[in-house]
Amino acid sequence: MSKAEETKNRIIQQAANLFNQQGYAGSSMSDIMAATGLKKGGIYNHFASKDELAIAAFDFAAQQASQRYLWALKGKRGAIARLKTIIHTFSTSPDEFSIKGGCPLLNTAIESDDTHPVLREKTQTAMYQWRNLIHQIVKKGIEREEIQPKVDPDAVATILISTMEGSLMLTRLYGDRIHMQRAKEHLDHYVEGLQVS
Amino acid sequence: MSKAEETKNRIIQQAANLFNQQGYAGSSMSDIMAATGLKKGGIYNHFASKDELAIAAFDFAAQQASQRYLWALKGKRGAIARLKTIIHTFSTSPDEFSIKGGCPLLNTAIESDDTHPVLREKTQTAMYQWRNLIHQIVKKGIEREEIQPKVDPDAVATILISTMEGSLMLTRLYGDRIHMQRAKEHLDHYVEGLQVS
Repeated sequence: MSKAEETKNRIIQQAANLFNQQGYAGSSMSDIMAATGLKKGGIYNHFASKDELAIAAFDFAAQQASQRYLWALKGKRGAIARLKTIIHTFSTSPDEFSIKGGCPLLNTAIESDDTHPVLREKTQTAMYQWRNLIHQIVKKGIEREEIQPKVDPDAVATILISTMEGSLMLTRLYGDRIHMQRAKEHLDHYVEGLQVS
Repeated sequence: MSKAEETKNRIIQQAANLFNQQGYAGSSMSDIMAATGLKKGGIYNHFASKDELAIAAFDFAAQQASQRYLWALKGKRGAIARLKTIIHTFSTSPDEFSIKGGCPLLNTAIESDDTHPVLREKTQTAMYQWRNLIHQIVKKGIEREEIQPKVDPDAVATILISTMEGSLMLTRLYGDRIHMQRAKEHLDHYVEGLQVS
């Protein structure tokens, strides 16, 4: 990697941490300069605008988040075990996720829905990939007769993601892990109920 | 109500709609001027700062949200019916709620958690009132032997609020009501499962 690429990557990483905590609208150019230790020119050398940096930072954050799941799922067999791995991985997020400020998909969904069409579209795509990961696990589970055939794979994706993201919001609002623990227990039980008995 | 009070209330209402869509950091003084049709001086006549207006606007939005539930619950008897009323009221929110931009508690929780201690505390209190409303219904339901005694009222509050808020996030991200419908079906089923059989 060239020195310029290294600098660019470092800016993206530091901006991702900043944006994920303060939001895109809430992060000024001075905040970005303070977070990266660079002058305005040093940042504009690599990005044409704050928006271009925001998009690169979101892509990086979303990829970091998605990689955690792919790693955790490696070697895990069986639909129920794989769904539980996703639930478990999410519920340990606040401590272990490399980017501060919670889930970048949740944060950017809330911030961009009424204001930023490009980031909204990016978030839709990243969230779709997550929904689709769950959809595929459930679909395969039905094919392999591990999961009841009446189960709707898309509905499982909605319930898992809604409950996890909502409980993360409560956990971060109160600084109290109990909400994510309750969500984990509830979803583990829900997922067990999908099994062919 | 005096003319000054009327103007102040109108500013609060219009600012609540603006902040709930664009966020506090994302709403500039010019945005507030455009939304209210007032000059800067006209706004500063009633509020010492953007922050003071932000807090008044949040209080107004949170009160509007809470009133919807209190109205919907009037005359509803029985813990299961009352919990289902809350779920139903929430799942019709995007169309019927008087303030645009989704749930002010969710939006402000996400925006303020890392950035705005006063708004965060306001959101904690408003969210606590909502959690407590659900807690009290479940507690009474256990006392009246409608709900199983092993059920934890606080856990029910966490699951209902997490799933509803998370599904609202998905519904607004994709402009698709299906996510809230799925959450409603899931929670109706969950709540039915708490009943003494």
